[in-house]
Amino acid sequence: MANDLLITNCSLLSEPGGVIGHRSFVEIGAGRITAIGPMSSSPEPAKDTVIDAAGKLLLPGLVNAHNHCAMTLFRGLADDLELATWLKEHIFPAEAAHVNPEMVYWCTLLAAAEMIRSGTTTVADGYFFSGQAARALHDAGMRAVVAHGIVDFPAPSVPDPSKNVTTVAAFLDQWLGRSPRITPAVFAHAPYTCSPQTLRRAKELADQQGARFFIHLAETQAEQALIIDPQGSTPVRHLAELGILDENCVCVHAVWLDDYDLDLLADSGAAVVACPHSNLKLAAGIARIPDLLGRGISVGIGTDGCASNNSLDMFREMDLLAKIMKLRPLDATALPASAVLRCGTTEGARVIGLAEVGTVAVGAPADLIMLDQRSPHLTPFYSGDLLVYAAAGSDVTTTIIDGTVVMHDRQILSIDLAKVYRQVAPLSEGVRRFAAHRPKPAVPVR
Amino acid sequence: MANDLLITNCSLLSEPGGVIGHRSFVEIGAGRITAIGPMSSSPEPAKDTVIDAAGKLLLPGLVNAHNHCAMTLFRGLADDLELATWLKEHIFPAEAAHVNPEMVYWCTLLAAAEMIRSGTTTVADGYFFSGQAARALHDAGMRAVVAHGIVDFPAPSVPDPSKNVTTVAAFLDQWLGRSPRITPAVFAHAPYTCSPQTLRRAKELADQQGARFFIHLAETQAEQALIIDPQGSTPVRHLAELGILDENCVCVHAVWLDDYDLDLLADSGAAVVACPHSNLKLAAGIARIPDLLGRGISVGIGTDGCASNNSLDMFREMDLLAKIMKLRPLDATALPASAVLRCGTTEGARVIGLAEVGTVAVGAPADLIMLDQRSPHLTPFYSGDLLVYAAAGSDVTTTIIDGTVVMHDRQILSIDLAKVYRQVAPLSEGVRRFAAHRPKPAVPVR
Repeated sequence: MANDLLITNCSLLSEPGGVIGHRSFVEIGAGRITAIGPMSSSPEPAKDTVIDAAGKLLLPGLVNAHNHCAMTLFRGLADDLELATWLKEHIFPAEAAHVNPEMVYWCTLLAAAEMIRSGTTTVADGYFFSGQAARALHDAGMRAVVAHGIVDFPAPSVPDPSKNVTTVAAFLDQWLGRSPRITPAVFAHAPYTCSPQTLRRAKELADQQGARFFIHLAETQAEQALIIDPQGSTPVRHLAELGILDENCVCVHAVWLDDYDLDLLADSGAAVVACPHSNLKLAAGIARIPDLLGRGISVGIGTDGCASNNSLDMFREMDLLAKIMKLRPLDATALPASAVLRCGTTEGARVIGLAEVGTVAVGAPADLIMLDQRSPHLTPFYSGDLLVYAAAGSDVTTTIIDGTVVMHDRQILSIDLAKVYRQVAPLSEGVRRFAAHRPKPAVPVR
Repeated sequence: MANDLLITNCSLLSEPGGVIGHRSFVEIGAGRITAIGPMSSSPEPAKDTVIDAAGKLLLPGLVNAHNHCAMTLFRGLADDLELATWLKEHIFPAEAAHVNPEMVYWCTLLAAAEMIRSGTTTVADGYFFSGQAARALHDAGMRAVVAHGIVDFPAPSVPDPSKNVTTVAAFLDQWLGRSPRITPAVFAHAPYTCSPQTLRRAKELADQQGARFFIHLAETQAEQALIIDPQGSTPVRHLAELGILDENCVCVHAVWLDDYDLDLLADSGAAVVACPHSNLKLAAGIARIPDLLGRGISVGIGTDGCASNNSLDMFREMDLLAKIMKLRPLDATALPASAVLRCGTTEGARVIGLAEVGTVAVGAPADLIMLDQRSPHLTPFYSGDLLVYAAAGSDVTTTIIDGTVVMHDRQILSIDLAKVYRQVAPLSEGVRRFAAHRPKPAVPVR
């Protein structure tokens, strides 16, 4: 029986958070899972296409539903700063000086390497020079939704803001249908950086092209005051009033919501991406994820750009999400690990418009990871909850995307990592010199 | 020039959170650091004693200031449960059925393996059958403060609670001065499980023997109601009234403190251990670490037992501590990464009574770790903040304790890990069978 790839002797989870069944096989053909079963019924493998996964746990690849990949260049450049200071005095100036097509290509590849090594197979990116990001994620072998940014002021790849929507239209034209793994999309930065007219035009473009529409929404308490529109409006009501809040709208962060906002989100069919590490590091707050899930709203998980995190490890993100949600109600049952695993896989994929992805099932795209269960911190292994509360990206030994092995035995096969380091080194040296010549705000000594 | 071990070409941090100097040497003799300097002044090495640390960052080993090591056996046994349910319906019954001297020895070794692999060189343990824990940590090559537990009800190694203090006295007699790396101590479980008389006797014993006194304090909001003593008293006031709060008292958790409690702690010279992952997972709350540090109180960081975490990786713990402290004030500058690095090293060592430990300095004990800087998630590396916000235990390649290399190239040299797995497997199988026959409380579906 012909097959492209046969994985033997792997363990599978019965369900997210469930117990582990032993010794299964997974067969892959033409990028999809063609069969799953116990080893006793495993097909005869074609030679050179077998991975013996004894001692390994096979999982769907993780879905990072929000990232600004190229911002790896600014990782750790400005930590422990208030969001507005961080953005306006550090990140925006650094971006103005250092973001260019080459930078986006190489620093997105650096992000891809980190994601592949930590078990992420699909990412939703939002940045500028998105053609370069798409090229990098394609070259890295990743599956990605690549959304081009829109703001109403001069941006790295759009110096004239009057062309912000048409630039993205051109990007969509270029990438729609071009790669089976890369889906172009639209990213309106936020209600406080895009006028109502810009938001409407961006959403119209996305809908016309069948592209996903993303927006940072209700990230900080201060955001509400920044919206010029009707007095008393919240960011969510603002979007609803503009007719933007619907099934094709992905709200990233959604931290500051009142109950009416929750109802509006639920009624609209819009989806949410939680970024718990970024929300803590920038002191934005805690999202209301159990309330969102309770109203049937789809929730994905994102790392955000690694300048505000500073890691792209989705295992860390899942761990924090499950734990931080217990804090506000002081209720340890508020969000179980199994629900978080779903948000990090199937739910996250649905949120970003790739409903087929994020599952280990016959017919699904073969986006799979293998974890080495044989290490002290995963011993004993009573249930899949441990994936959320103890596993780390470094436990991933093998990453398969679209049926292609992109990492095996922790060696990345799809990226020339040494070359990435060589290309990024002078870029980061430039950032270091740039930062050294800027006044550093005093951090209070405590 | 004779030396026991010479580390060459390593990078050193100028200070916690500081920039990185390049190409240094560190010389070690008789378990201590004997010289540090630039490579240009490196001594001639004796052969077979050189570690080339090119591309590696040398740090002090991390200090896990609170753990119940043997509880690795219960890792992930009961997640997403409220603290009282977790403790009374799951952990206490499992302990009653499964904790014995053999279990404590092998499961403490399992914890030691996890800690060594994630860069922890010193741990403060608190459990029962502490002679076995001390033996395991000694055999593992770790530095440890091993505190024997005291409660007023039958405990695994003390079936008759009237002997709870005398049992610990015998343990101290046995281990004081026995191993240069193992320091015995006293752990009174909590004000709600120990009577005032027990607390006084336990503290008296610790003071008489020059042993450190630990206690879980003010972990949950509910704890205050559990203290039988004077109406209106808080856990901190309760200890102060008993005369227990002083320089030899280590308060673990210290989550629920009012301002008067903070003043009492500061005036007394008592120290605190923060356990942020455990406090979130069990929905205990957020400690007031910036307020404690602001009053000059020493703060260490602990993972707590890995049944309530479920990891012993101190890098995760530092990351969360720095981030979660920004939440209550919604202030991203509330606790900088550099301060957290000190809590995870020098400060933590001081808290548990080992003031010499936790630093890279001539004359200090040679407890050192090396991190591989050459990986995507540590690129670029602008400052030592990245150790808190991006590094993980799996980045540690080499661990040195008391001048002895206990892990190199991620291979543990001081523990027969295969044997530990063999010994733990039937124990965890027993727990699995035990748990399967107990009614499982329903977790609400959300």
